[in-house]
Amino acid sequence: MNIYDIAELAGVSIATVSRVLNDSPNVAEKTKLRVREIMAAQGYVPSGFSRGLGQNAMKTIGLVCPDAADDYMAKAVAFLERSLRDYGYDCILCCSGYGYEDCQIAVNALLRCRVDALVLIGSVYADDDPDGQRVNYIREAAAHTPVFMVNGYVRGENIYCAVCDDFDASRSAVGEMIASGHRKILFLADTDTVSTNLKRQGCQAALAQAGLELQADVSVGLSNQINQTRDYLLKLADLDVDGIFAANDALAAGAVKYAKRKGLSVPGDLCVIGYNNSELSVCCDPELSTIDSREHRLCQIVIDFLKLHLSGRQGGTRVYAKGYLIRRGTTDF
Amino acid sequence: MNIYDIAELAGVSIATVSRVLNDSPNVAEKTKLRVREIMAAQGYVPSGFSRGLGQNAMKTIGLVCPDAADDYMAKAVAFLERSLRDYGYDCILCCSGYGYEDCQIAVNALLRCRVDALVLIGSVYADDDPDGQRVNYIREAAAHTPVFMVNGYVRGENIYCAVCDDFDASRSAVGEMIASGHRKILFLADTDTVSTNLKRQGCQAALAQAGLELQADVSVGLSNQINQTRDYLLKLADLDVDGIFAANDALAAGAVKYAKRKGLSVPGDLCVIGYNNSELSVCCDPELSTIDSREHRLCQIVIDFLKLHLSGRQGGTRVYAKGYLIRRGTTDF
Repeated sequence: MNIYDIAELAGVSIATVSRVLNDSPNVAEKTKLRVREIMAAQGYVPSGFSRGLGQNAMKTIGLVCPDAADDYMAKAVAFLERSLRDYGYDCILCCSGYGYEDCQIAVNALLRCRVDALVLIGSVYADDDPDGQRVNYIREAAAHTPVFMVNGYVRGENIYCAVCDDFDASRSAVGEMIASGHRKILFLADTDTVSTNLKRQGCQAALAQAGLELQADVSVGLSNQINQTRDYLLKLADLDVDGIFAANDALAAGAVKYAKRKGLSVPGDLCVIGYNNSELSVCCDPELSTIDSREHRLCQIVIDFLKLHLSGRQGGTRVYAKGYLIRRGTTDF
Repeated sequence: MNIYDIAELAGVSIATVSRVLNDSPNVAEKTKLRVREIMAAQGYVPSGFSRGLGQNAMKTIGLVCPDAADDYMAKAVAFLERSLRDYGYDCILCCSGYGYEDCQIAVNALLRCRVDALVLIGSVYADDDPDGQRVNYIREAAAHTPVFMVNGYVRGENIYCAVCDDFDASRSAVGEMIASGHRKILFLADTDTVSTNLKRQGCQAALAQAGLELQADVSVGLSNQINQTRDYLLKLADLDVDGIFAANDALAAGAVKYAKRKGLSVPGDLCVIGYNNSELSVCCDPELSTIDSREHRLCQIVIDFLKLHLSGRQGGTRVYAKGYLIRRGTTDF
């Protein structure tokens, strides 16, 4: 029994069935009643998906992310697409890559598709300065269509942002690392996005408070691969660290594999903290302590902003979600 | 120096610069020459992405997958989107879920968007019988727009399929498991897609050849989560197996964690083979032996089919790619 059968039994279109599911005012009460009776009699359980169906004027949202294969982006894309489809919107996906020119091109390409809104996933579309010139292209886009940002903040009209407090979450986690006796801390990254910079700065702030500095600041380049990270660290012959704070879980998993290869115990000789609480963090042995960067929450905030805006109501323009450390096997505090 | 600067210096639109990058016949040779000279003088290196830019009549492809957050799907979506954009197409993404009705609805929703082609990712859109009634909705879609399938095969006009030989790859890998002395083999799955069935059947065929049967056939449900898989196996009190063949790497990683919890050595007491050669397979300790299911190759075949078809030329309708075992730390053969 599916929505097509219900439509046939009721003698209406699937669009009408969908509207009944959405309790749309554009269906006569009599028709609603009949369709609902048939659904009840047939024991029909609609999928959330059926609700988005058959709206004749489906509208379109542009989703932009640097790389839809990246675990963090992939989860955001999946969550946003399903939420927006349930709300009656199609999504055009555009994977921009991480280059500045490519980000501009992607945003402009979707503007030309005349999307009803743009959702930009990841801090690569932001700038350290929310008023900076580099993000003028975002403000220019927002002059044409509302822009919603997942973990990026640009100040401007018609721009709505949900942001994880990466600085605070990092400062707090590294602060605990220091308090438990670790002094020689390495910051490990693979991109130079705003979010990565905030993580580094949070790390440095915690160290500064204890009168310390980063022991090492390593970027392995944009590979995001576990074994490449391990090998990169193994090549740094004079590495003398007792804590690694990594900008994502793949990097942290690489750090754990580095420690094993060097005969260092984790967390005894070397404690490791990852970021994003991905499935890699529980695959790793020992399981990674990692920061929950509240991705699901950020996406939900963006959806809420978007619904408010598209229904003509006002909302705020920036909401923070608080990241926090999940303690597992690679830390001893 | 980006494509906008080149366009300004040359006094042409970015669409024209993009056409020059694509060596389009619709640009005068004189203009091409001028734009190329400016690019050379400025040391401009175009991103692959710039090529897809500014084509005024961007066309649209519908990408359908059950779950864009799944590692396999995410990689396919990312690869296909970038390839299609370079070729001048926008992609509308639709995540259908795994239910039969939802798959139908997704395909029909994209047809209503009047896409130039549909690409269906995953065997959930196929049927064990390529002529079966259950996949009539695919054949009906193909009457309106060409359909391209990544790892699914449906027989019909206007349907083009790239398929991994999951049966053969599984039979061969489990055959080696048996030859090296393992007899009590568990098949571990989380979906009941065509691909999962072929893996199970390949496994059973290898066992039958040795006069054996599956010791256990376990489906953990559609969670695809490592620790849930471990816990599910721990609850099966009377499990007596010396080999686990898993339909994906998350399941295999869960099996390795199960073994550790039970005090079984891997691969000594229990050998484990995963599927898809994902990043989880190298995160796991020991690293997972896993079958490379040739995802990248399947996507490339689909792109080649699509380009042939959209340029009005003929190609085949089905191509197989050969999966093969990558030997790492969870097998001893």
